[in-house]
Amino acid sequence: MDLSLYTVRTDLALEARELAEAANQGQSIPGVISESSRENGIRVTKIHVMNEEGSRAINKLPGHYITLEVPALRQKDSSLQNRVATKLAQEFALFLEELGIPKLAKVLIIGLGNWNVTPDALGPLVVENVMVTRHYFELVPDDVGPGYRPVSAVAPGVLGTTGIESSEIVQGIVEKSNPDLVIAIDALASKSLERVNTTIQISNTGIHPGSGIGNKRKGLTQETLGVPVIAIGVPTVVYASTIVNNCIDLMHRHFQEQTSQTGQILGLLDSMQEEERLQLVKEVLDPLGHDLLVTPKEIDQFIEDIANVIASGLNAALHEAVDKTNVAAYTH
Amino acid sequence: MDLSLYTVRTDLALEARELAEAANQGQSIPGVISESSRENGIRVTKIHVMNEEGSRAINKLPGHYITLEVPALRQKDSSLQNRVATKLAQEFALFLEELGIPKLAKVLIIGLGNWNVTPDALGPLVVENVMVTRHYFELVPDDVGPGYRPVSAVAPGVLGTTGIESSEIVQGIVEKSNPDLVIAIDALASKSLERVNTTIQISNTGIHPGSGIGNKRKGLTQETLGVPVIAIGVPTVVYASTIVNNCIDLMHRHFQEQTSQTGQILGLLDSMQEEERLQLVKEVLDPLGHDLLVTPKEIDQFIEDIANVIASGLNAALHEAVDKTNVAAYTH
Amino acid sequence: MDLSLYTVRTDLALEARELAEAANQGQSIPGVISESSRENGIRVTKIHVMNEEGSRAINKLPGHYITLEVPALRQKDSSLQNRVATKLAQEFALFLEELGIPKLAKVLIIGLGNWNVTPDALGPLVVENVMVTRHYFELVPDDVGPGYRPVSAVAPGVLGTTGIESSEIVQGIVEKSNPDLVIAIDALASKSLERVNTTIQISNTGIHPGSGIGNKRKGLTQETLGVPVIAIGVPTVVYASTIVNNCIDLMHRHFQEQTSQTGQILGLLDSMQEEERLQLVKEVLDPLGHDLLVTPKEIDQFIEDIANVIASGLNAALHEAVDKTNVAAYTH
Amino acid sequence: MDLSLYTVRTDLALEARELAEAANQGQSIPGVISESSRENGIRVTKIHVMNEEGSRAINKLPGHYITLEVPALRQKDSSLQNRVATKLAQEFALFLEELGIPKLAKVLIIGLGNWNVTPDALGPLVVENVMVTRHYFELVPDDVGPGYRPVSAVAPGVLGTTGIESSEIVQGIVEKSNPDLVIAIDALASKSLERVNTTIQISNTGIHPGSGIGNKRKGLTQETLGVPVIAIGVPTVVYASTIVNNCIDLMHRHFQEQTSQTGQILGLLDSMQEEERLQLVKEVLDPLGHDLLVTPKEIDQFIEDIANVIASGLNAALHEAVDKTNVAAYTH
Repeated sequence: MDLSLYTVRTDLALEARELAEAANQGQSIPGVISESSRENGIRVTKIHVMNEEGSRAINKLPGHYITLEVPALRQKDSSLQNRVATKLAQEFALFLEELGIPKLAKVLIIGLGNWNVTPDALGPLVVENVMVTRHYFELVPDDVGPGYRPVSAVAPGVLGTTGIESSEIVQGIVEKSNPDLVIAIDALASKSLERVNTTIQISNTGIHPGSGIGNKRKGLTQETLGVPVIAIGVPTVVYASTIVNNCIDLMHRHFQEQTSQTGQILGLLDSMQEEERLQLVKEVLDPLGHDLLVTPKEIDQFIEDIANVIASGLNAALHEAVDKTNVAAYTH
Repeated sequence: MDLSLYTVRTDLALEARELAEAANQGQSIPGVISESSRENGIRVTKIHVMNEEGSRAINKLPGHYITLEVPALRQKDSSLQNRVATKLAQEFALFLEELGIPKLAKVLIIGLGNWNVTPDALGPLVVENVMVTRHYFELVPDDVGPGYRPVSAVAPGVLGTTGIESSEIVQGIVEKSNPDLVIAIDALASKSLERVNTTIQISNTGIHPGSGIGNKRKGLTQETLGVPVIAIGVPTVVYASTIVNNCIDLMHRHFQEQTSQTGQILGLLDSMQEEERLQLVKEVLDPLGHDLLVTPKEIDQFIEDIANVIASGLNAALHEAVDKTNVAAYTH
Repeated sequence: MDLSLYTVRTDLALEARELAEAANQGQSIPGVISESSRENGIRVTKIHVMNEEGSRAINKLPGHYITLEVPALRQKDSSLQNRVATKLAQEFALFLEELGIPKLAKVLIIGLGNWNVTPDALGPLVVENVMVTRHYFELVPDDVGPGYRPVSAVAPGVLGTTGIESSEIVQGIVEKSNPDLVIAIDALASKSLERVNTTIQISNTGIHPGSGIGNKRKGLTQETLGVPVIAIGVPTVVYASTIVNNCIDLMHRHFQEQTSQTGQILGLLDSMQEEERLQLVKEVLDPLGHDLLVTPKEIDQFIEDIANVIASGLNAALHEAVDKTNVAAYTH
Repeated sequence: MDLSLYTVRTDLALEARELAEAANQGQSIPGVISESSRENGIRVTKIHVMNEEGSRAINKLPGHYITLEVPALRQKDSSLQNRVATKLAQEFALFLEELGIPKLAKVLIIGLGNWNVTPDALGPLVVENVMVTRHYFELVPDDVGPGYRPVSAVAPGVLGTTGIESSEIVQGIVEKSNPDLVIAIDALASKSLERVNTTIQISNTGIHPGSGIGNKRKGLTQETLGVPVIAIGVPTVVYASTIVNNCIDLMHRHFQEQTSQTGQILGLLDSMQEEERLQLVKEVLDPLGHDLLVTPKEIDQFIEDIANVIASGLNAALHEAVDKTNVAAYTH
C-alpha cells in the first residue's frame, strides 16, 4: 500500500499536528512544540517545528506557525472582526520582531489567487484593501511621517489567466522593487468545513508547490525570492470527500459516547484509519465527478469580511503610526 | 417516530419520483407518468403528476414538470450552452402551447433571490439578461414589430434585505402591471452535488413556501397571483449532510458490485433507509454548525453561464421574432 | 421667443432660487424664505416655498427643501463622511418631526435608478446599505427592542430594464406593505460640475416626472401613493452643455475683476442671459451628439461613499436606538 | 510666453496632426504621411511619422499610428462591435507583418490601469478577456494545435494601489517570461468628448511618461523592455476644460456659416489660438477645482463593450487558428 497516496494533505500545521498526534495515540510529537491560548472567542495556537524529526512527523517544514481560530467569524459580527484584526496585528508584529525583521524593513505584499473566483479572491482583496506607502518613500520621502515603512502590494493573477507562473511574476517584481520581506496571502483548501473562513494561519515557511487552491505550482520562498517570506493563509474551500470523511469521524465520536459497539453501526468504516477512509471516499466520489471543491453559500460576504480583517491587521502590524486600538478604520 | 421529520425534501420532481420508486422497490408510481429522451448530451424528462394519489406518492403537487439534465454544463463549453438554450426555448414554447397560453399573452418574469449572494443570484441575473418589451407596447405600440409580445421583468429582492415578503411585492406588481402569465426563476437546494448547476426544472405548479434557498415563505401561485405561474428552478447549493448521505449511498452501490456483505463494511448505515440515514447525519452535523449549504468553488462562472442559458431560452421561447437557431445572440 | 425652451432646468431648489434671484437683480423672491448655516465644512440651507407665487418664481413646488453642501465630500475623507452622515441624521430627524411624522411611522425606502449604471446606482446602493426591520415587526414583534420602527427598502429598477414604470411598481408595493411614509432616493442631473457628489437635497415634495437622470416619468407623490413622500436627491451627472455654460459664466466673473470691458473678450456671450446662452450651447452641441451626460472619472468611489453617508444618516434618523454619535458603524 | 505651457497635449496622433495642420493653415506636414479609408461606419487612418521633422511638427514620436474611428460604437450595436473587432484583427495582423514580427513571436499583453476605476479599467478588462496560451506551450507543448502562438497577459495595477511603478513591474515580468513582443493596452484622455469610447489607436512607439490617465510615469518602450512595444489606446475620459474649449471652437464654426462677424459674437475668444484659449479656460476652472476628468454616464457599458472588441480583435490577430469571420465568439 503506497502510503503517500493515503496521506491526508492539509495546509494547516494545526491539523497536521492533530493528525500526527492521533496516529501517535494522542502523544505529543518529538520536535514539535505547541502553545495555545484563548481569549474573547479567539484561540491562538503557536506551533514550532524545531527540527527534521518534527518536520517528518507532521509533514510540515521546520518553522513557526501561528493559527487564529475564530469559530464565530462567519456571523457578520463587526465588533468581533475588529477584535480579530487587532489580535492579528499584535501577533503579526510580535512575529516580525521574533524573526528579527527590522521595524523599517521594506515589505511587499503578494495577493495570490484569482479575482474572478470568489473563494480564491482572498489575496487580491487584501491587496486592494491594504495601505501602500512605498511610492511616497520613493517620490516624496521628506513628506512621509514617522511610524510608517515602505509597503507595496501586488496581485499577480493565476497561471490560467496570465499564462505565467505567479512565482515567476513575483520574482520579477521582487528583483525590480527590492523588498526586505515578502508577505504572501493565499486561500487554502481545508480539511474541515468548520475551518472555512474561520481560521487564519501565519507561518515563516513560505508558499509551496501544490498548496492552496489555485495553480501556484512553484513556490514563494526565501530560496526563490532571496528574502524571507511570511505566508498568511485562510481555508476558503473544502473537498466534498473531506466533508464526508469528517462526518464519518464525527459519527464515530457521536456513537462512542453512547455505546462501545460503534463498529456495529459504522462497520469497517469505524476501524479504518482516517487516511484510508478518506482514500475510500475519494475512490467512490472521484470517478463520478462528485469530489468537487465546495465553499459555503455565503462566501461573497465571508471573503470580504476576512480580507478586511487581514488588511486591517497588516496595516496596524506594519506601521507603528497606525492606531492599534481601532485597526478597522484604516481600510476601505 | 415522526416520519415527516425524516422526509428527504427535494425541490426536483425527478428526484422525488426516484425516491418514491426506490421506496416502492423500483415499481412505477400510480398517478405519475414519465417520459424521457436524450440527445446531444441533454436529457429531457417530463413528469406528469396526474392526480392526488400521484401527488401524495411523490410529495409533489399535481402538474407538469420538465427537467433538462446536462452533466457537462459546468465545463464552460459555450457551444453546449447554446444547444441547451435552444432546447430550453423549444421545450418552453411547447409547454406554453400545451398549457394553452396564447401567443401574445403578456408575461412578467420574476427573478427571485439575492443579488449579493452568488448562488442565490440566478433569478436577478436572468432578469438582467432577458429582453423586456412591455414598455414599447405601452409607449410606442405602433413601432413594435410582429413576433414580439409584452414582457416585463423584476427582481423583487429577498425578505432579509427588503423587509417585505417577495410574494407581497410580486402581488403588488402583478396588480399594477396586469400580466397574463408569471414566470418565476429561482435557485434551489439540490439533493445531490452532481445536479448543482447542471439541471433545469420547469413546472406549472408555481413557487411554494419553503422551497428554494432564500426566505421566500409565501407562495407565487395561480391562487395568490390570479394568473398561471410557471416556475424555472436550478439547484445551485447542497447541504453538507446531503453530500455525506449521497456518498454513503454511493459506497453502498460501490461495494454491492464487489460483495454481498456490504453490511460488514458500512455497518448499520448500510441497512438504514435513506431518510433515516440523512436524519442521523443531520443529527451529527447540525449541533456543531457543520450542516452548511455549500456550492462549488466555481459558482461565479456557473451561475452566470446558466443565467445566460435561461435568459436566451426565454427570449427565443417568448418572442416568435427571435431566431431560434442562435438564441444566445440576443442576450448581453 | 418661447421662454420655456430657454429655461435652465434644475432639480435643486437651491440653484432654482439662485437663478431666480439673479434674474431679479439679486433681490430675494416673494413667497420664498431661506436660511443658511455653515459648520465644519458643511453648509445647510433650508428653502421654504411658501405659496404659489414663490413656486412660480423659482419653478419649484411649494414645500420644504433642505440642502447639505459639502465641497470636500469627494476627497475620500472618512471622518468628514461620518460628520455629514451625522448632520444628515439630525436634519432628517428634525424634518420628520416638523412634518408631523410620528416616531413609529412605518417607512418604505425606495431606491430609484439602475444598478448597472454607476452614476444612476445611488438609490439601489442606499437600499443595499440601509437597515431593514419591517420583517422583524411582522414575524417576531415581541423580539424587537425599543427605539426601532418598521423600515423596508426596495429598488424597483428602471423602465428600460423592467418594462414597467417604477412608479407603478412602487404603487403596488405601497398597497401591499402599507407604509406611513415613503422616502425616495434618486440620482439627479446637476447644473454645475462642482455639485456632483457634493450636494444632498431633502424635500417633502415627492419625485416628479422628468426629474432625475433615469426613466422615471411618473411621479412618486402623496397624490399617487396616498402617503407623504420625502425625496433625497444627489446630483451625480451633468450635461456637457452645462459645463460649457458654467465656464463661460466663470470667465465673465473672472474678467469682471480685471476689466469693465468683458464684452470685448466674450463678445455677445457676455451679455446673453444665462438661459439664452445655455440654449445656444445646446444648439451647437446637440446636433453633433456632443451634449452627453458626464460624470467624474472617480464616480465608482464617489457613489459608494455618498450612498453610505445617506444610508448611515437614515439609519440614525429613523431609529432612536441607533447611536447618533457614530452613525457609520451601522452600515456595511 | 512659454509655449510649452500652452501646448494642447493629445495622446492621439490623429488629433496631433489635425492641430499641426490647423496651425499650418491646413497644409500637410512635412515628414508626416497619412492615408485614410472608410468602410461600414469604420474610418481607418494611418499616420506615418517619418522623421524628426515630422515628429517635431506634430509632437509625436517617429513611428506608425493606426486609428479606427467608429462614431456609432457607443450605441450598443453588437453587430457593429463584431465588425470593428474583425477590422481591428485584420489591421493588427497586417501591422505585425509590416513591423516584421514573426508569426510565432511570443506575446505579452499588458493591461495598464486600475480595476476599480471604471474609465481606467480598459487594460485590466482586456487582459481578463484575452485568450492566454503561454502556459500550454510551457507545460504541454505537444498538445498545442497549429495556428496558435504563446500569449500571456498581466494587469500590473497602478502606482497608487501597488506602490510600485507599473513600468518596473512590467520590466520584471518581461525579464522572467521572455516575450518577443509586448502589447500594452491603456485608457487615454481625449481632446474631444466625441472620441471617448469611439476611437482606437494602435502604434509602435510604446507607452510614454505622462500619457494616459493614471499614474504610469515611466515608459514601456523598446528601450526599457528590450523588445518591441505596440500600444493600443482608447480615449475614455476628457477634461472639463477640453469640453469647453471644443464647444467654443464649434460655436466659431457654427457662426462662421452664418456671418463673417464671429468676433462680435465670441469676442476675443474667437480670435485666440486654440492653445491660448484652452489655457484661459484652464486658468478659470482650475483654481475652483472645476477642471475634473469626466466620462460619459454610461461608461460601465461602454468600457465593457470596447474591451471585448479589443480582446476579440487581438485573439484573432495573434492566433491564425482563430476564425477571423466571427471573432467575438472567442471571448467571454
